[in-house]
Amino acid sequence: MGGVNMYISSVETYLLGTNITNKELGELINFKPQLIEKLFGNYGRHFSTDILTGKINNNTSDLISIVLRKLIEKNKNSHHDIDFIITSTATPDHLLPTSINEACYKLGIKNIETYQIIGGCSGAVQALNLAKYILKSGLHKKGILVGVECSNKFLNLLDSGNQKTDTREIVNYVLFGDGVGGCILSSEETRNSLTINEVSYKYIGLDEKIGQLANWKGTRENMNHSPMLQEEYKLIEKIVPELTQDSFKSFLSENNLKISDKMWLMPPQLSGKMVDVICKKIEFPETHILSRVADIGNCANAALFFQLKEFFDVANDGEDGIAISIESSRWLTSRVHVKKGGKCAK
Amino acid sequence: MGGVNMYISSVETYLLGTNITNKELGELINFKPQLIEKLFGNYGRHFSTDILTGKINNNTSDLISIVLRKLIEKNKNSHHDIDFIITSTATPDHLLPTSINEACYKLGIKNIETYQIIGGCSGAVQALNLAKYILKSGLHKKGILVGVECSNKFLNLLDSGNQKTDTREIVNYVLFGDGVGGCILSSEETRNSLTINEVSYKYIGLDEKIGQLANWKGTRENMNHSPMLQEEYKLIEKIVPELTQDSFKSFLSENNLKISDKMWLMPPQLSGKMVDVICKKIEFPETHILSRVADIGNCANAALFFQLKEFFDVANDGEDGIAISIESSRWLTSRVHVKKGGKCAK
Repeated sequence: MGGVNMYISSVETYLLGTNITNKELGELINFKPQLIEKLFGNYGRHFSTDILTGKINNNTSDLISIVLRKLIEKNKNSHHDIDFIITSTATPDHLLPTSINEACYKLGIKNIETYQIIGGCSGAVQALNLAKYILKSGLHKKGILVGVECSNKFLNLLDSGNQKTDTREIVNYVLFGDGVGGCILSSEETRNSLTINEVSYKYIGLDEKIGQLANWKGTRENMNHSPMLQEEYKLIEKIVPELTQDSFKSFLSENNLKISDKMWLMPPQLSGKMVDVICKKIEFPETHILSRVADIGNCANAALFFQLKEFFDVANDGEDGIAISIESSRWLTSRVHVKKGGKCAK
Repeated sequence: MGGVNMYISSVETYLLGTNITNKELGELINFKPQLIEKLFGNYGRHFSTDILTGKINNNTSDLISIVLRKLIEKNKNSHHDIDFIITSTATPDHLLPTSINEACYKLGIKNIETYQIIGGCSGAVQALNLAKYILKSGLHKKGILVGVECSNKFLNLLDSGNQKTDTREIVNYVLFGDGVGGCILSSEETRNSLTINEVSYKYIGLDEKIGQLANWKGTRENMNHSPMLQEEYKLIEKIVPELTQDSFKSFLSENNLKISDKMWLMPPQLSGKMVDVICKKIEFPETHILSRVADIGNCANAALFFQLKEFFDVANDGEDGIAISIESSRWLTSRVHVKKGGKCAK
């Protein structure tokens, strides 16, 4: 990308409570556990809500503050050289104050540029892309990115099942998981850091229906409120693998690369089944796919950080990681190319 | 700021329907018109909702697309050299798709980086600050910023008044207005453009209560939903003038400037009364204050663009404009220093 380089020195993630199995979830929403696995390929997830009592244990700003604290501990136990924080989420606690500012308040972090962008599956890459510009501008040297999702608090696990007769609604209980992840991003290399070779993101303007819609409500009761989340699952199943293939092909040709065992793929996150479909379509070897979606559900804005953490842990110096996110809300495509190790590893 | 410069070549704004007077509003919410003017100093506003029928005439993405179209017309009738669009709002239509992506879809704009940040009164400056980094990075040359507010669709003008007995709730009907504004931002100077000399924004971490809260709801009915908007008006009245004074003082000293008739102030937007209090506190001459809040209400994310448009229209070459926004959600402070004319005007 020329000029200033960009490095990830730490990646941290956090999941709430215990893993909720398909058996537990299936009993709750009256859906066969075997069918959850067959249809979606998912077998676990973590929720912000206690599934026995309905009590909300953590909200979005709690999750942000947990990961912020972990990252700051890694940063010589200090936030004083952190210039900016960008959070991306589809499920903020309120519209205002933003959840990132609430988290800063909880931790006593002051005098810092904070931003909260709204995005779905591409949100974390949007945040990374904005951070790229900030570092490239030369005006700042170090920032923190946080991707967080806490959708479960808006769903009602304990209702009588009336609201969940619509498949588009049931899907939300099965696909998603709550979680948070983040990283420290810096223009200076540190030992064992990841180098960001490329980030890209755009609204592509596909002439298709909305694939995913996340709703919100005010106090006004005379509005026509549709369900909180809606998935056009069949449309997503058709389009996401195609867009991933396009993005992956152009990545290979632009970088003059071929699939090799020095390359790791972080595929789009929807469900375990979709990961299989996507990776088969681009003929990517199963051993080098980094995805947590099957065991923790789709954590949307947090998902990329779970993948980057895996890459951080398993890749050897000089190996490539390519993350692709496709957001089905209004069809956004985004990509990140990371390399284990810094310039010295090239 | 060194390196790449930054210019605003066009500013556009838009208000919905006709002006709603204090008399009309007062009758609707059972509040004396004279008291609205006395307490808040506001005498007009525009709503996205028809006050007679309750029908919602426009939503946030409609407003964004109106201003986007106007800006694109000014940009040689083309969006093809626009690299990015950043929207800021506290009242998106949905969480996903973002309202900016919906607006792009409506206009057929494709293959562009779109971002939607959530912010209150400081949102437009946050967007401008992010755009600064994008241009300074040298990776892009031209972008559009849009600030939009469409809060009225979430309030119920036609209910029996029960919800509006709480002053914190009534304040929302009186203070706010719907509106949209935007600008084209470029690293290249054009005739008559504004030069951005400085932009700054930060979360300051004041140890105070939340001044403003904007809520949202999911389908879950067993949550404790508080009112859509809440204002700690007394706290805001105390803190905003103080923070504005601090920011203005440091602006003057950092730039070695004194108040002169070549300087225009764009003060924080809450109400007409607050503008008076703020400007008296810093002893700024009334003739050089640019504010539309008294006649159009607080349009939050759109307000800065209404002020910049006034500056664009009234300032002479070489004159300074200083905009200060204080966001009372979690106490954010932000500032923009613009100059009429470009380098040649210095």
